[in-house]
Amino acid sequence: MIKDHFNKELRELISAEEWLIVREEYMPEENLAYESLFGLANGRMGNRAAFEEGGNKKTLPANYIHGVFDKSEAFMRELANTPNWLELKMYYLREPFGIEDNQELNDFISVLDMKKGILFRSYTVITESGRKTKIEKMKFLSRANSYLGAVRTYITPLNYGGLFEFENRIDGTVTNFADFPRFRVKHLDTLEINDLEAEGAFLKSETRDFGMEIGTAAVVDVKNLAGEDILKSKQFRAFGEIACEFFDLELQKKETVVIDKLAAVCTERDQEDVYQACLKNIKEFKQQGLDSELAEHIKEYQKMWSKADLILEGDQKMQQAIRYNIFQLMSTPNPDDNQTNVGAKLLHGEEYGGHAFWDTELFVLPFFNWTFPEIAKNLVEYRYNLLDKAKENARENGYRGAKYPWESADTGDEECPAWTIEPDGTCYRCYVADYEHHVTAAVTLGMANYVKVTGDQRFMKEKGIHILLETAKFWVSRFSYNQEKKRYEILKVTGPDEWHEPVDNNAYTNHLAKWNIDFALEKLKEYRKAEPALYQKLCQQYGIDQKLIKCWQQLSEKIYTVADQGLIEQFEGYFELECETINEWDQNKMPLMPESLKGKDKNEICILKQADVVMLMFLMDDKFDLETQQTNFDYYEKRTLHRSSLSPSIHCMMGLRVGDDQRAYDYLERSAYVDLDNNQGNTREGIHAASAGGSWQSVVLGYCGMKIDPDGVLSFEPKLLAKWSRVKYSISWQGEILDIEVFEDDLKVSRRSSTDGQKIRYRVNGRERIIN
Amino acid sequence: MIKDHFNKELRELISAEEWLIVREEYMPEENLAYESLFGLANGRMGNRAAFEEGGNKKTLPANYIHGVFDKSEAFMRELANTPNWLELKMYYLREPFGIEDNQELNDFISVLDMKKGILFRSYTVITESGRKTKIEKMKFLSRANSYLGAVRTYITPLNYGGLFEFENRIDGTVTNFADFPRFRVKHLDTLEINDLEAEGAFLKSETRDFGMEIGTAAVVDVKNLAGEDILKSKQFRAFGEIACEFFDLELQKKETVVIDKLAAVCTERDQEDVYQACLKNIKEFKQQGLDSELAEHIKEYQKMWSKADLILEGDQKMQQAIRYNIFQLMSTPNPDDNQTNVGAKLLHGEEYGGHAFWDTELFVLPFFNWTFPEIAKNLVEYRYNLLDKAKENARENGYRGAKYPWESADTGDEECPAWTIEPDGTCYRCYVADYEHHVTAAVTLGMANYVKVTGDQRFMKEKGIHILLETAKFWVSRFSYNQEKKRYEILKVTGPDEWHEPVDNNAYTNHLAKWNIDFALEKLKEYRKAEPALYQKLCQQYGIDQKLIKCWQQLSEKIYTVADQGLIEQFEGYFELECETINEWDQNKMPLMPESLKGKDKNEICILKQADVVMLMFLMDDKFDLETQQTNFDYYEKRTLHRSSLSPSIHCMMGLRVGDDQRAYDYLERSAYVDLDNNQGNTREGIHAASAGGSWQSVVLGYCGMKIDPDGVLSFEPKLLAKWSRVKYSISWQGEILDIEVFEDDLKVSRRSSTDGQKIRYRVNGRERIIN
Repeated sequence: MIKDHFNKELRELISAEEWLIVREEYMPEENLAYESLFGLANGRMGNRAAFEEGGNKKTLPANYIHGVFDKSEAFMRELANTPNWLELKMYYLREPFGIEDNQELNDFISVLDMKKGILFRSYTVITESGRKTKIEKMKFLSRANSYLGAVRTYITPLNYGGLFEFENRIDGTVTNFADFPRFRVKHLDTLEINDLEAEGAFLKSETRDFGMEIGTAAVVDVKNLAGEDILKSKQFRAFGEIACEFFDLELQKKETVVIDKLAAVCTERDQEDVYQACLKNIKEFKQQGLDSELAEHIKEYQKMWSKADLILEGDQKMQQAIRYNIFQLMSTPNPDDNQTNVGAKLLHGEEYGGHAFWDTELFVLPFFNWTFPEIAKNLVEYRYNLLDKAKENARENGYRGAKYPWESADTGDEECPAWTIEPDGTCYRCYVADYEHHVTAAVTLGMANYVKVTGDQRFMKEKGIHILLETAKFWVSRFSYNQEKKRYEILKVTGPDEWHEPVDNNAYTNHLAKWNIDFALEKLKEYRKAEPALYQKLCQQYGIDQKLIKCWQQLSEKIYTVADQGLIEQFEGYFELECETINEWDQNKMPLMPESLKGKDKNEICILKQADVVMLMFLMDDKFDLETQQTNFDYYEKRTLHRSSLSPSIHCMMGLRVGDDQRAYDYLERSAYVDLDNNQGNTREGIHAASAGGSWQSVVLGYCGMKIDPDGVLSFEPKLLAKWSRVKYSISWQGEILDIEVFEDDLKVSRRSSTDGQKIRYRVNGRERIIN
Repeated sequence: MIKDHFNKELRELISAEEWLIVREEYMPEENLAYESLFGLANGRMGNRAAFEEGGNKKTLPANYIHGVFDKSEAFMRELANTPNWLELKMYYLREPFGIEDNQELNDFISVLDMKKGILFRSYTVITESGRKTKIEKMKFLSRANSYLGAVRTYITPLNYGGLFEFENRIDGTVTNFADFPRFRVKHLDTLEINDLEAEGAFLKSETRDFGMEIGTAAVVDVKNLAGEDILKSKQFRAFGEIACEFFDLELQKKETVVIDKLAAVCTERDQEDVYQACLKNIKEFKQQGLDSELAEHIKEYQKMWSKADLILEGDQKMQQAIRYNIFQLMSTPNPDDNQTNVGAKLLHGEEYGGHAFWDTELFVLPFFNWTFPEIAKNLVEYRYNLLDKAKENARENGYRGAKYPWESADTGDEECPAWTIEPDGTCYRCYVADYEHHVTAAVTLGMANYVKVTGDQRFMKEKGIHILLETAKFWVSRFSYNQEKKRYEILKVTGPDEWHEPVDNNAYTNHLAKWNIDFALEKLKEYRKAEPALYQKLCQQYGIDQKLIKCWQQLSEKIYTVADQGLIEQFEGYFELECETINEWDQNKMPLMPESLKGKDKNEICILKQADVVMLMFLMDDKFDLETQQTNFDYYEKRTLHRSSLSPSIHCMMGLRVGDDQRAYDYLERSAYVDLDNNQGNTREGIHAASAGGSWQSVVLGYCGMKIDPDGVLSFEPKLLAKWSRVKYSISWQGEILDIEVFEDDLKVSRRSSTDGQKIRYRVNGRERIIN
């Protein structure tokens, strides 16, 4: 039993096993992946699961805060690693004990409690001198007050007693890329260290580029199991960029001390004076105590799960994985902040610098649209807030309208570097930002889907329409007219499949661009009739008149979209590339490069990183008939290596849709377990946000077949796996929460709140039902 | 063969084996002791032998600079650990290699070349991934330009090749007591980090109390064995308090790269602008190259050894140990600086804060008097320079004249804390500074001996006389008159034996104090006749007249010196203490506390930490007849545990003197091997300066029986050990260097320079000889 590893207090706290992710063995080489995997986020900050004890080499402690970016010597503006407030160093007779490289660990267990957002840990350490100590820990980042985090540590000397010494530290020496000497960079300067008016330890730092201040405070509360204060003495010390409280206490053999480390992290983003904010938060935290804050925190998670949980009966491992993906997704964005987004690796690792990609709109956003529309709204408003920057970005690149950056941080500037430095130090010209333009359509499509699911027409009218018109303008300017072929084309462009760059007339991009323009035309038409005042305003603002509309229509009609039927060529010339279909799969059932094509220039062969045409059809279901979708899925699936973590979930859903569901579950596993099984080997760099969103979509939109019919009615065409006896989840629909239960041969929808008389229609396999 | 571990270049550099101290195995638990043992000093700075590679936990890197003290939160003003300029981190594919805790080391060897003052090291490291790399190193702190230090590193990948990455770092995060959480303190603030005008890396720091600036600069020079520059690129980076040069290069399998790290360390003590000083030094160092500086450095050591070497034939281990002690002693003090002294642990460790004790005058100074009189002069001038502070110290304690502090740093303030903090955090009232006053007599005696050996009467007249008169005034004021017993007494005082504190009428202190007063009277008498002008000046300055002289004489006559003959009681009441003589010795032949006295209050028993009366007789040979010396040695030797490293050498020499030489060699071994064998277990804290000096004295003044007869003639009464076939050493005598060769049955003295006609008289066993 997992709980058996813990003391009574912790046993009572830990949730049922189905809610737990467990690391049952300590192997240092797994530390970095587990630091991401067990990372906690509370909407404001993300904190990797580094050990508070310190002393082990395989660690990359990080505390990322939404919106705290910096560039300095890095080659891109990235989420800055902020001071490490976790550290609690433990000593007996000067000898550190804990997770030390030269000490024996027994009964190690680490448990992520997804239900409550708490990380537990327990082990016995035996030092070289034979001293045995039991350590038990719990850590949480408060969801109730997202400035706060805390770690409780139980320490029990098992075969000795005496004087123990501790250091409660805040470490301002942290860097990004700490174990990557070539890229290591320090994003913060330490401005001030003090004892927080004798309350604890305080460290003020600021980002080096923009000078944004960050206050980090930490204090300890030390009691025995009877609740008595047993601290002997406490002294504040400063060691350069490290703030420290040194304290000591006497412990008898088998006596347990409980050390609560309470921390507060405040930034200039939302606090005028970070020192005062830390002081106030710490004082209140101390006064009310860890347990009280923890209770509030758990309540918040309860609320969140009541909206987002997904029960998958008959498939324990997948159940755990889907919950894990939901847990990390819903924990990350800030419900009160529309200036920040969700990074491709969430707040759990440093890869991609915390930047938002098209991953947000097409993979992550759908989850929030259906479960936390208020968070979804922030994510689309984030793009609206940066619309001006996108316009600047278009102008700078010689286009009109708004061109969203491939990688987006706080300013909306293009953060995707034109030059990257390879690990071997060679500079590499990165063309992604130059050619990969489809993100701009993804932003529009994401926004449109947000409105479609949530029905937030007010957002559409006030903000979304501007995104729509500006992006349409961009696409109009992006096309060039081919006199000879009498068609509009996008030349030199890269689709999602980055192994072919740049190409002419990428099917995915041309289709999405056309959709973007068409949707703008459609909305204008709609508003002209339904919202004449708004329409007039828009016409004035954008210089829209019938002539312009006509132009856009003509352009749209003449866009070369390759084909709408039959086998669609990914881009002009793709069919001429050297080709062999995939005939080998690895032990994870993932396809391998055909032998004859190995080592060849990827631009010259047919093998794909991810399949543009399949992705296109997934998004534009209504544009392609089923046979076309089948033809193309069948063709491209044999040529796709899924070297992007975005790819498998789409192939799961498309396989289900076209009836070629042989490998759908393999794809779902690939997507859902990407971090739990570390099956790309890069979980140490953070959690795959798009996989998490794609996995949720695969179950809900794929297997449960949920969609919105063209007439706006909620609809289900479930295709449950035989082993799944029941899938239950909730959605936010037309302002209320619906609970959906899907069985092999039935589906139930129930409303949670008592009815206010308004009926809700829905369809199951095309047959309409009504909830009263 | 030791040299076989090294490449051709290094083999040619390494001296003959008799000059080498070798560490043949890598056991991490020995690191800290070897960091002291193999620490290098060049008169200006001392640098512990931490590994430049970093990556191992058992390390206390330190770079101490003479005169750079700081207190801050420490409980005493101590030598500040200054930025670590050693670090050269090595990576292959991001993986650090070197002395890493998780990597295999083969053929490890580390060699201290005492002849040249160079530290060599070689090993092969095998990483977890199986990559084998041969590392060879040499390091020196230039004796030719004591601002400079350098490390040469040869790196040869044995079974792989590719891109290597390196970091040349200067680490300003260093603290004192780094592995002692209770006492850890950071003495420096980092002020500035920059790239030294693109020359390398520069870090400016300052001591926190006095704001003394320290500049540390380091640059690398990277070549292949053919001498070609193979650096790919180099970038300067700052990480908080760490300055760093990142660089990389390609190496083929079995190709060797030679990385010279050149460093300069300058302080405000002797440079107006530490940045400019570093820049200039580094530029010149780069230009002339490591080899050229090394050649100059070796020349300097050659000169030093020509004055100070001691050859001991027939006793290889003792030969090595005596050379080791000489090596560390002569390497430490600055020949150009009379503002600093020699710390009790040299510049090699942090114990005793780099403070000067009476150890300097009675143990260390005699070595310098006889070999490097110019350094001896600095050491006595140091005390003269701080005479005013000693006068202040006397006044503050209610006395007159000058009272030298028990522990002395840069300011001359008493640095011995009134309160110390024990490792368990309890405060401990330390009475040493209150009661242990004999250091003031030691300072005077040391100065007197300096003058006696060197004949530097000018120093005596200009400076020494002031020390003498002020210390005499102190002692006069220190005595109190016992009306009943009609005698002058020193009450509440502690002698060298600190296990009895405080006591009344400590024989050692009373005798030394009386000597101090008598010597003052004697000098006044001498000057009155021989130096009337000086005498007049002194009388004016000190208010000396015949009345005062009379008073001092009367006081001196009535000083209670316990006895001059027979068994002398260490202090009043000592003979009444509970007593049992020593009857057990440990495996190092060192005495153990008698069973019946174990655990008793040391003040209440007769067992001594070190023997005051034996020490007294060692110093005041002429005051006690041989029988008295024999009686007392016999008595106290049975009651002394030698828990001070000062004790054994004295017992060696006294045993030889009184003919009880049974254990003399044991004592010499104890003293000479204290650090080489780490026989007190505390070599990690630094090198025992007093033992080093005492060991030299034991051989030269003890076994070779060298002394100055009352008529000023150099005299020898050798008592060589049977196994010693020859002892050869050199002394500085009357302005020239004499080479002394001692055989079992003969002794030869020869002058090194061609005679200028002046004959030198000396005596062997009382029979006079003359050198032409």
